[in-house]
Amino acid sequence: MEDCTYVIFGATGNLSRIKLIPALYHLDAAGRLTDGMKVVGFGRRDWDDGAWRSQVRGWLAEKQTEADVLERFLARFHFCQGDLADEAAYPALREMLLGENDFSHNIVFYMAIRPAEFGKVSRKLGECGLAGEKGGWRRLVIEKPFGYDLESAESLNHSLSRDFRESQIYRIDHYLGKGTVQNVLVFRFANLMLEPLWNRNYIDHVQITHSESLGTEGRAGYYDGAGALRDMIQSHLLQVLTLVAMEPPANLDAESLRDEKVKVLRSIRPIPQSAVNAHAVRAQYTAGKINGEKVPGYLDEPDVPEHSVTETYAALKLFIDNWRWRNVPFFLRTGKRMAKGNSMVAIRFKHPPQQLFRETQIEQLEPNWILMNLQPNECIRMEMQVKQNGLEMRTETTRLDASYCGINPDQLDAYEALLLDVIEGDHSLFLRYDEVSWAWKVVDPILKVWSVERDYITGYNAGSWGPPEADRLFLRQDQYWRNTLDGNDEEAS
Amino acid sequence: MEDCTYVIFGATGNLSRIKLIPALYHLDAAGRLTDGMKVVGFGRRDWDDGAWRSQVRGWLAEKQTEADVLERFLARFHFCQGDLADEAAYPALREMLLGENDFSHNIVFYMAIRPAEFGKVSRKLGECGLAGEKGGWRRLVIEKPFGYDLESAESLNHSLSRDFRESQIYRIDHYLGKGTVQNVLVFRFANLMLEPLWNRNYIDHVQITHSESLGTEGRAGYYDGAGALRDMIQSHLLQVLTLVAMEPPANLDAESLRDEKVKVLRSIRPIPQSAVNAHAVRAQYTAGKINGEKVPGYLDEPDVPEHSVTETYAALKLFIDNWRWRNVPFFLRTGKRMAKGNSMVAIRFKHPPQQLFRETQIEQLEPNWILMNLQPNECIRMEMQVKQNGLEMRTETTRLDASYCGINPDQLDAYEALLLDVIEGDHSLFLRYDEVSWAWKVVDPILKVWSVERDYITGYNAGSWGPPEADRLFLRQDQYWRNTLDGNDEEAS
Repeated sequence: MEDCTYVIFGATGNLSRIKLIPALYHLDAAGRLTDGMKVVGFGRRDWDDGAWRSQVRGWLAEKQTEADVLERFLARFHFCQGDLADEAAYPALREMLLGENDFSHNIVFYMAIRPAEFGKVSRKLGECGLAGEKGGWRRLVIEKPFGYDLESAESLNHSLSRDFRESQIYRIDHYLGKGTVQNVLVFRFANLMLEPLWNRNYIDHVQITHSESLGTEGRAGYYDGAGALRDMIQSHLLQVLTLVAMEPPANLDAESLRDEKVKVLRSIRPIPQSAVNAHAVRAQYTAGKINGEKVPGYLDEPDVPEHSVTETYAALKLFIDNWRWRNVPFFLRTGKRMAKGNSMVAIRFKHPPQQLFRETQIEQLEPNWILMNLQPNECIRMEMQVKQNGLEMRTETTRLDASYCGINPDQLDAYEALLLDVIEGDHSLFLRYDEVSWAWKVVDPILKVWSVERDYITGYNAGSWGPPEADRLFLRQDQYWRNTLDGNDEEAS
Repeated sequence: MEDCTYVIFGATGNLSRIKLIPALYHLDAAGRLTDGMKVVGFGRRDWDDGAWRSQVRGWLAEKQTEADVLERFLARFHFCQGDLADEAAYPALREMLLGENDFSHNIVFYMAIRPAEFGKVSRKLGECGLAGEKGGWRRLVIEKPFGYDLESAESLNHSLSRDFRESQIYRIDHYLGKGTVQNVLVFRFANLMLEPLWNRNYIDHVQITHSESLGTEGRAGYYDGAGALRDMIQSHLLQVLTLVAMEPPANLDAESLRDEKVKVLRSIRPIPQSAVNAHAVRAQYTAGKINGEKVPGYLDEPDVPEHSVTETYAALKLFIDNWRWRNVPFFLRTGKRMAKGNSMVAIRFKHPPQQLFRETQIEQLEPNWILMNLQPNECIRMEMQVKQNGLEMRTETTRLDASYCGINPDQLDAYEALLLDVIEGDHSLFLRYDEVSWAWKVVDPILKVWSVERDYITGYNAGSWGPPEADRLFLRQDQYWRNTLDGNDEEAS
């Protein structure tokens, strides 16, 4: 592995403190960082390297660390004092990175800053000659939101692309941390049993649910301007959809993978503005109880505007108009303050022909399900029908759980894998711009309609599984929401 | 349900004592017997009803019984003293059954006697007018062996059919006790996921194994004249094969089911006598250890002839020449004194295409398996590939077990279900003569060759999984025997 220099803009902020630096520490402890790897913090504080290192030492104090690894780790840290808006700061940074210091000229610029700054900082980097790949590579890492709608996403990308080529840009979707993406790919394509079944001949519909029991958690300022559709569906859940729905790629290279994902997004049947209400449901939580505790409604959360109609819940019905999926609905759903925090892909198969059992006590054969739980625990479950014990011909559902279900593995934080991928130049878990753009095209008609219908929004009780109105997305009586692995009845109480 | 009279020939023998009467008791306790149902024991002992009832009471003493059920049950019992060979005994039986007694004229004749007597007794019943269905139905129940080879099976059937029609004859295969047959049918046909995969496009091969850790257990006199091929494969394992391989029947009626089973047997590619050694392996156990205890070789068991070459182990490779199964080998295997007693169907899928993972650390994708354990515990397991936890792209096998695996359900004894089926006239779990006959046709060429090659038989250690020679049946290097659910390494030691 090559040496490199990790520059963190916003080095003293939350993302840096909570995610990036602990992840880098773990990579160091696991022996995944080269000796010449350095971390440069860029920030306004009037610190030198020593002050910065003691700050980092303080952040890591509550983690489990080993003394010798910690010293080695801290020795990597340097501080570049400066203000993002200050023209003079960038040449100073350049001098530090490319001057007399013994830093690697392979440089990662990690934008742990507000999205509104992405374009400005990348411009400054370009202007001072830090974007061009002379003497080493230069990589720019950004996190969502990648724009606010299709238009602003185009505009952001236009800014970035003035100074950085697409191949230099790493758009992180931590939701798809290494685990999930690769697990779904391995499960689908390393098992001969699944691929023959994975299409409209056998699958009735697919549900992708991300529920949170938390509310806005002090982020209402950001959240009220975004809403559930932007915050979760446009970004994360559409990504999961592409993994579930895509054709087998030619190989696991980033471009092959992303080509296939984009094909899925491009095949999603556009929702005409006139049909938005038939394909999407939005709602906002009202006061309720979660785990026995009363919680306020969204409008009573701090920093939420008085008459906000921002959705904290969104459900969508999408169709993918290709050979594999024609007329199989994909239901995507997310919400805050729901009964439990969980992420799950639920694949429902069609009913088998009943006629073999028509003269038995079996009134209706239950369909098979494949459930892939993503969070908080990973699990794969199949629900199949077996004969009930006893003389009568009755069936019951049995659950086949992967042997690792319920065991919490020593999971890598998504950031560890992603930070390493940036160093290694592996784009496969990062979003290419056309993915971002096509995902915006899917939700844009809904955003447009919702932005003008601002007089009323349906409510749902905090601690419930969302509004009953979401049921109207279903095509048939026998479709219903699967909430978590273990049943649908529970309400947080 | 109709009243009936159960006549047991050989009423004082082991089968009657150990299986039939306890099973009838359980049916009574479960409220499945009508008030007018009687049990008539036919035997040589000089007993009256009272003596017979105290005998039965003694047999049931070690079982859990309820006092009031037991009294009701014993009141059903009557005894008819007589010798099977005595001409005068049958008119006396007739008088008892159809005379002044208040017995139902629906009569079951249960042949708990030596197979050599089946034909003689049925003839006598015919001669004295007990076979014809005047004033009620008459049903004849027999247990295997149904002949010794194709010719003797024909001959037995010829005898029986002089006095009883096919629809009156119930050929019991207790191995297929209600559980197994119906479980396999429900699993295959109540789950949409399986049927699309259940064919030569996806399945590499099928293994059906019945292993016993027991030896001849004092039955060497019978066993040495039969051998593993007749005792298990011709009868039981070919039945299991038909259930695994058959097309979906039109319904679960006995005739629809048996029609489909016969279609499978008729589609089995005949083994020419010249190719018997390529399709079949026989062996005989030598001394060894089971569960840490030394056990003698077959030739040292009591009652085994000095130079016997009777096989205690047999393995077979069969092909079913139809659209579904062309060129998919079915491996059938059974043996005594093997490492463990277990019965399992193992379905191995083909390898998935490797190319998606060709640049990863995955050298060879393991194929999927579906394992259906039949005895001692029922279990359904799928073995699938998932990604190993960690940064590298490696796969590992995960087991998806049905939630009931490992729980020993309050299982019905096979006899309970079967005795009730006879009363209810349900043939579906009984063998029709053409099934028996076609099963003999499958093994007949092997029996013929083995009967002339009598100078040598391969040995295998008691407590092993059989002779290494059995591996030569496989078509490819990547095929191997699956012994039990939990791995292949264990030897009984």
